Amino acid sequence: MTAKRNPKAAAAKNVLVRGEPIIARVLDATIAELAMKGYKALRIEEVADRASVARTTVYRRWPTKAELVRAAIEAMPGADPAPPSTGSLRGDLVELGMKVVTFSDTPEGEAVMGLFAADGDDRDLRALLARLREERSEGVAAIFEAARERGETISPRSASMIGELLPAGIFNRKLIMRERVNRAFVEELVDFLLGRERRVK
Amino acid sequence: MTAKRNPKAAAAKNVLVRGEPIIARVLDATIAELAMKGYKALRIEEVADRASVARTTVYRRWPTKAELVRAAIEAMPGADPAPPSTGSLRGDLVELGMKVVTFSDTPEGEAVMGLFAADGDDRDLRALLARLREERSEGVAAIFEAARERGETISPRSASMIGELLPAGIFNRKLIMRERVNRAFVEELVDFLLGRERRVK
Repeated sequence: MTAKRNPKAAAAKNVLVRGEPIIARVLDATIAELAMKGYKALRIEEVADRASVARTTVYRRWPTKAELVRAAIEAMPGADPAPPSTGSLRGDLVELGMKVVTFSDTPEGEAVMGLFAADGDDRDLRALLARLREERSEGVAAIFEAARERGETISPRSASMIGELLPAGIFNRKLIMRERVNRAFVEELVDFLLGRERRVK
Repeated sequence: MTAKRNPKAAAAKNVLVRGEPIIARVLDATIAELAMKGYKALRIEEVADRASVARTTVYRRWPTKAELVRAAIEAMPGADPAPPSTGSLRGDLVELGMKVVTFSDTPEGEAVMGLFAADGDDRDLRALLARLREERSEGVAAIFEAARERGETISPRSASMIGELLPAGIFNRKLIMRERVNRAFVEELVDFLLGRERRVK
């Protein structure tokens, strides 16, 4: 945008901050293209055009589509992998769930979620998704580790199942059932997963 | 296939059984096209060509793409909506989960699962998916109803959460985590959902 309004000033700015605005523009353009076209149809050339930068600028920094998409996803707001720290396992899980909800409520987040479900047959994309999943599960592991240190014990098997079913329950509501997800649902889901409610009498 | 090897015999057969083989051929072709191209790119003309039938034959019976796809999905093996009846809630839920697994293990089932996640912005498709979801939840409700009649009581809230998280957990493993799902996982999932394992000490 800035570049279009005042190309000279934008160019000067790019030089001054060593290309940072260019990076942000390219990553924003990548997410926008991803949201519009999906992974398969995304072209580095079109990302460059949308960001109003030279194609070589993009290729130099991110030689493959998968690297570019990964950088763009990791730069998204809400993609912050730092685990929440509320002081209780229930609180941490609710916050983690709400991070998933907030992230997936944006058109860009929805596009990224769709990626996981739809385009998984591309080899590079699969490797990228595997890495993102790993980061996610490291975040969940940190929450359970903190709970153990506080004395809130939970079996490793249950922890692993909860780590799977918390995002699965949210994705299912949003992607499959196509319903909005709010904090009340996330709390209900977490309480169910923690077994705070008696199931079978 | 038969049509290509011996067109005359196939034509005669079609007449004899009042078009049944034509229906099966069209519905099979619909699933094949769906698996290859997804819902958005599916064209009734191409389904007709693949099934080697006249396009009007398809249009006469299924005037819209959504109607054709719905008929094809409902005719798929494993899409049988009759709820399992093993005599126990745990057994019924495991069987239901295994039906989801069996269905989604075929390329065609995977294509249909992908539909739910990817193409939800088409209005006709959304209506179709809503109907399929409704049928699925009716099947789950029947299982819990039978459990209540046997005296296996469970809170309606838990029943509803279990009905959501059983398929959600399987879809998550397959679509998001890209792992194979076997009976051991389904049993572990059902036991977790029924609270047979203590979670938090």
